[in-house]
Amino acid sequence: MANKTIREQREYIEECIRLIMQKKDVSDALVIDLNGYPMKSTMSDELTLRHIGLYGQVIDKARFMLTQLDPNDEITFMRIRSKNHEVIITPDDKCIFLVIQNPRSEDRL
Amino acid sequence: MANKTIREQREYIEECIRLIMQKKDVSDALVIDLNGYPMKSTMSDELTLRHIGLYGQVIDKARFMLTQLDPNDEITFMRIRSKNHEVIITPDDKCIFLVIQNPRSEDRL
Repeated sequence: MANKTIREQREYIEECIRLIMQKKDVSDALVIDLNGYPMKSTMSDELTLRHIGLYGQVIDKARFMLTQLDPNDEITFMRIRSKNHEVIITPDDKCIFLVIQNPRSEDRL
Repeated sequence: MANKTIREQREYIEECIRLIMQKKDVSDALVIDLNGYPMKSTMSDELTLRHIGLYGQVIDKARFMLTQLDPNDEITFMRIRSKNHEVIITPDDKCIFLVIQNPRSEDRL
């Protein structure tokens, strides 16, 4: 997404969210910029900010951990599966995609 | 692993580690008890304690986050992929398995 214009970035994100939400067991999707601000969300404002606040801490902690073990390493993907949800976190160079889905679905991302 | 004797638990862990390490692109494996003490590790003592300290923080943060969003939820699996490594974290009722492997391998866990 590096050399896209702002408008192209927005269209790229809209298209990504559209495709992601077509997966039948995806419940929500969220795109966060690198400053932690929501760029796009399928959730309410309140839930969006809660997810950003909480997941942002996990992503930061995982990034910190990685740089302590290997300063040249960088997170490319996180999957956090729990009894009731599965969350996929994919950092891009300009934003972070966060997708929430049913952990028991056969059609998972 | 709930109703195993201590000896059976140890044998269970040894066997799990043995099978995991047969995967050609697994570099290391570590089993931590619920108090954060190493039960089994393929790494040096120093690296073992560093990994426990760092990953313990990520697991705690992810657990905290989950209970804030859904108090009845519980982590069952985490995958953290980076450019140079891929770490799989699987909490059991008595311990946590942590496996480190090559993220580009075709034969990944």
